[in-house]
Amino acid sequence: MEATAKAHTNIALIKYWGKRDEELFLPMNNSLSITLDQFYTITSVQFCECLTADKFYLNETLATDDETKKISELLDLIRKLSGVKMFAVVDSLNKVPTAAGFASSASGFAALAAAATKAIGMDIDEQTLSTIARRGSGSACRSIYGGYVEWQKGELLDGTDSYAEQVLHEKEWDLTILSVLLEPKEKKILSREGMRRSVETSPFYQGWLETVDEDLEVAKQAINERNFEMLGEVLERNAMKMHATTLGANPPFMYWQSATFDVMEKVQELRESGFRAYFTIDAGPNVKVLCQPKDEEYVRGALMALTPVQDVYTCHPGPGISYLPHTKRKTCC
Amino acid sequence: MEATAKAHTNIALIKYWGKRDEELFLPMNNSLSITLDQFYTITSVQFCECLTADKFYLNETLATDDETKKISELLDLIRKLSGVKMFAVVDSLNKVPTAAGFASSASGFAALAAAATKAIGMDIDEQTLSTIARRGSGSACRSIYGGYVEWQKGELLDGTDSYAEQVLHEKEWDLTILSVLLEPKEKKILSREGMRRSVETSPFYQGWLETVDEDLEVAKQAINERNFEMLGEVLERNAMKMHATTLGANPPFMYWQSATFDVMEKVQELRESGFRAYFTIDAGPNVKVLCQPKDEEYVRGALMALTPVQDVYTCHPGPGISYLPHTKRKTCC
Repeated sequence: MEATAKAHTNIALIKYWGKRDEELFLPMNNSLSITLDQFYTITSVQFCECLTADKFYLNETLATDDETKKISELLDLIRKLSGVKMFAVVDSLNKVPTAAGFASSASGFAALAAAATKAIGMDIDEQTLSTIARRGSGSACRSIYGGYVEWQKGELLDGTDSYAEQVLHEKEWDLTILSVLLEPKEKKILSREGMRRSVETSPFYQGWLETVDEDLEVAKQAINERNFEMLGEVLERNAMKMHATTLGANPPFMYWQSATFDVMEKVQELRESGFRAYFTIDAGPNVKVLCQPKDEEYVRGALMALTPVQDVYTCHPGPGISYLPHTKRKTCC
Repeated sequence: MEATAKAHTNIALIKYWGKRDEELFLPMNNSLSITLDQFYTITSVQFCECLTADKFYLNETLATDDETKKISELLDLIRKLSGVKMFAVVDSLNKVPTAAGFASSASGFAALAAAATKAIGMDIDEQTLSTIARRGSGSACRSIYGGYVEWQKGELLDGTDSYAEQVLHEKEWDLTILSVLLEPKEKKILSREGMRRSVETSPFYQGWLETVDEDLEVAKQAINERNFEMLGEVLERNAMKMHATTLGANPPFMYWQSATFDVMEKVQELRESGFRAYFTIDAGPNVKVLCQPKDEEYVRGALMALTPVQDVYTCHPGPGISYLPHTKRKTCC
């Protein structure tokens, strides 16, 4: 009744922005991501009759009640699906630079879903695993797969057709994803809250929805043709549109800081001097810059030279879920 | 056949953004502005049979052919309306800090329309004068009036119902408008070009149009009630929406620089510490901050303390068109 799984986080090139069902994590639009090779979560799960509640260790420390509650909600779903009623001890190691604006929830819930379903003895395919991971955190459904991944929003009310699929294997096209770490400032608007306020109050949300499918088709075509310029232009445009919806919210808000702007301007300058580099920004101030591996060193150096930049992490397309030999660090009974 | 007029520039609180007719300067939406007491143009016009072409002096210097051509186009309209066929010598003094993002076209064409129609002997009301000024530059139609001014977009194809009206006299409500001058950088996208690209390619332009009338009604109610917080919130929201349309254009563009962001963040900080201050931004990187006169000194000091800020100009609501005794500095024959 025990298993260990490893999942990598992912960065959206075409953004997941807006939910049609908050509880089931069903999105308003399809999205597209790259799974990243350097940032991951390793999670061990052991179900045992000796336990009277779930226990969750995060980076070697017993987690808070709030953190454990989220884990238990996903375990409840897995217990319901499997018919097994035991509690579990969950032991997670996160190698995700959360300060650089990466949520550990994508890799975290993907690894938890994989380890828990295996430990409990469910025999499921990756597509079903993707729908289960989605119930922990929307973008987790994409981290089941490696490389370039599309999340199909689906149409059904129960969400069974809302899962991710691989568009291109990680070995088929190498790109560089540079994560720019800025001076940490308090995040004023959480992504969940920002998403909701944009959907409910922004007059621009409709324009987002009307054009995101076209962006996604262009991005998939670019990936299939290995056309980096085409991919870069559409991912940057898509990120700008996502952020424009927040400017139209009531009251308006912005995830950017002035340092965010410095990085965006530097990327534009790099392009003007002949380097193909494009940025994307999630629901926070940090910027991710995509370039081709041959330009990686130069582009990273240019970004590191900016005053408000504290560090730049280098990633490439990484693999999907893998299962590791179970290492029992935390005992149940 | 000679006259001199003075017109002040204005700052839009509800933006003019998008033309329905490029040639007649007919806007897609109503807009609302404050005429500013410190920034103005004084223009003398003399029609004379001795001239074989229009001559235009700008700040004591004979203007370029391109500059003169724009002036002549408005004079052509006035010659057509009046039936008088003489050329003119035009002598303009601009006291507008163009580096701070103020176009001198609003005060310039308002003063030209006023001086030229008077010099040529036309007896017209201010409403007609407003439509004539509009043909030189859209926002010039608002500079005919003092204080708080609304530009009615009108419905007619010939633009005769597209003119400005005073909402509140400048003496009825005092506010402070601080114009923040940042380090000058080259303006990459002209406002005319940015407007056109947003109307034609931005999926957010429809959302702009659908909500601007409501913003305008809120702003007028706030002015009538002298409710500064209400006015500030809606003017800031409206500016954010205008700029959001540019993020959705294809290709996307931004008028902001990182210094723009520093000023916006400072204004938010000021609000968090209890000062009512709100920003607006036109088609460029510079920021205008509105506050109440009692807070003017403190807010100006806080803005001046920012590193990229070079200067902060203080304005209050100013008067509309006035006619001055004619001072002949440039002779025709």
